[in-house]
Amino acid sequence: MEDAILAELFKEADFSVEELRTIGSLLKRVNLKKGDVLLSEGDTVLYTHFVYSGCLRTYFLDDAGKEHTLQFAIRDWWISDYTAFFTGDKALTNIECIQHATIYKLSRKHMEQLYLDIPAFETFFRKKLERRFMALQKRILGNLAQPAKDRYLSFVENYPDIQQSVKNYHIASFLGITTESLSRIRKELAR
Amino acid sequence: MEDAILAELFKEADFSVEELRTIGSLLKRVNLKKGDVLLSEGDTVLYTHFVYSGCLRTYFLDDAGKEHTLQFAIRDWWISDYTAFFTGDKALTNIECIQHATIYKLSRKHMEQLYLDIPAFETFFRKKLERRFMALQKRILGNLAQPAKDRYLSFVENYPDIQQSVKNYHIASFLGITTESLSRIRKELAR
Repeated sequence: MEDAILAELFKEADFSVEELRTIGSLLKRVNLKKGDVLLSEGDTVLYTHFVYSGCLRTYFLDDAGKEHTLQFAIRDWWISDYTAFFTGDKALTNIECIQHATIYKLSRKHMEQLYLDIPAFETFFRKKLERRFMALQKRILGNLAQPAKDRYLSFVENYPDIQQSVKNYHIASFLGITTESLSRIRKELAR
Repeated sequence: MEDAILAELFKEADFSVEELRTIGSLLKRVNLKKGDVLLSEGDTVLYTHFVYSGCLRTYFLDDAGKEHTLQFAIRDWWISDYTAFFTGDKALTNIECIQHATIYKLSRKHMEQLYLDIPAFETFFRKKLERRFMALQKRILGNLAQPAKDRYLSFVENYPDIQQSVKNYHIASFLGITTESLSRIRKELAR
């Protein structure tokens, strides 16, 4: 992994030069084009991925064939089917590239090794998990307590540059509303 | 903290006897009666709490005065306003005791110290966060993809013994449905 990218990725962490080199040697670059599938339902999930550029989407396909968007990942996010990645179960979700992306993958095996060898590496991911935990709680509260318009405004605030890359039905399926409701909300806000 | 409770709490962790003693000395017992308020919106949140017995509930009060239940915590769960606890911001939620409880509180300051002194302590909470992260993702997917009846069944599965302690509007406000819908679902399932 390139030194500049590595330094940016771990800017909040407190690693020695040698530790940073060890970690960087285990992160493998992958280039994806729009439409590429990173993970499919039923896959064994051995990797988590750091998004350096582009945009990916995790979605769940229900029995009726409807897509539900669990997550978008843009620059600086990590993405995987985390339940499968953490537990070893098969993936329940799908991850596709929705805008040409450069990502770096890290295997669970290497991650476990780094947790043991470099305490600051575990601190880095414990803090990441805290932030993701807060974001998910905020989303659940939003789903319970906020009208769709406010949830849409939160989405735009959280992902300011994403609207160019994603289709309307991606956003609608993230917010749990129909594309018609999304259009109505946008028209209302444009007035 | 009592040795037997301490051993149970950290049964999955790999601590030495001395480490376990250090951790136990920092966990302070608190007894709560039904109706006691552990945390209120606007509070500074200095503690997280391990529930040894009883039941607590985190809820958010919206502008219209409606309660939205974010979390229930029964034996073996940890509870706090985590966003406030992690960031130092003021609490946005309220936590009340809904069934006589014995809990053990641990301060953020002590937690940070334990993260530094005992790497296995950070591993323990990193794994806890992974599990909570998975549970929250599952709940979000459920809210997006499942009808209310299935979400209710998941709730009953996740909290098998909770129905005695909680009011119908607690459960309804956790599932994001009205108490009337909850009654309808129960009647349907009883048939």
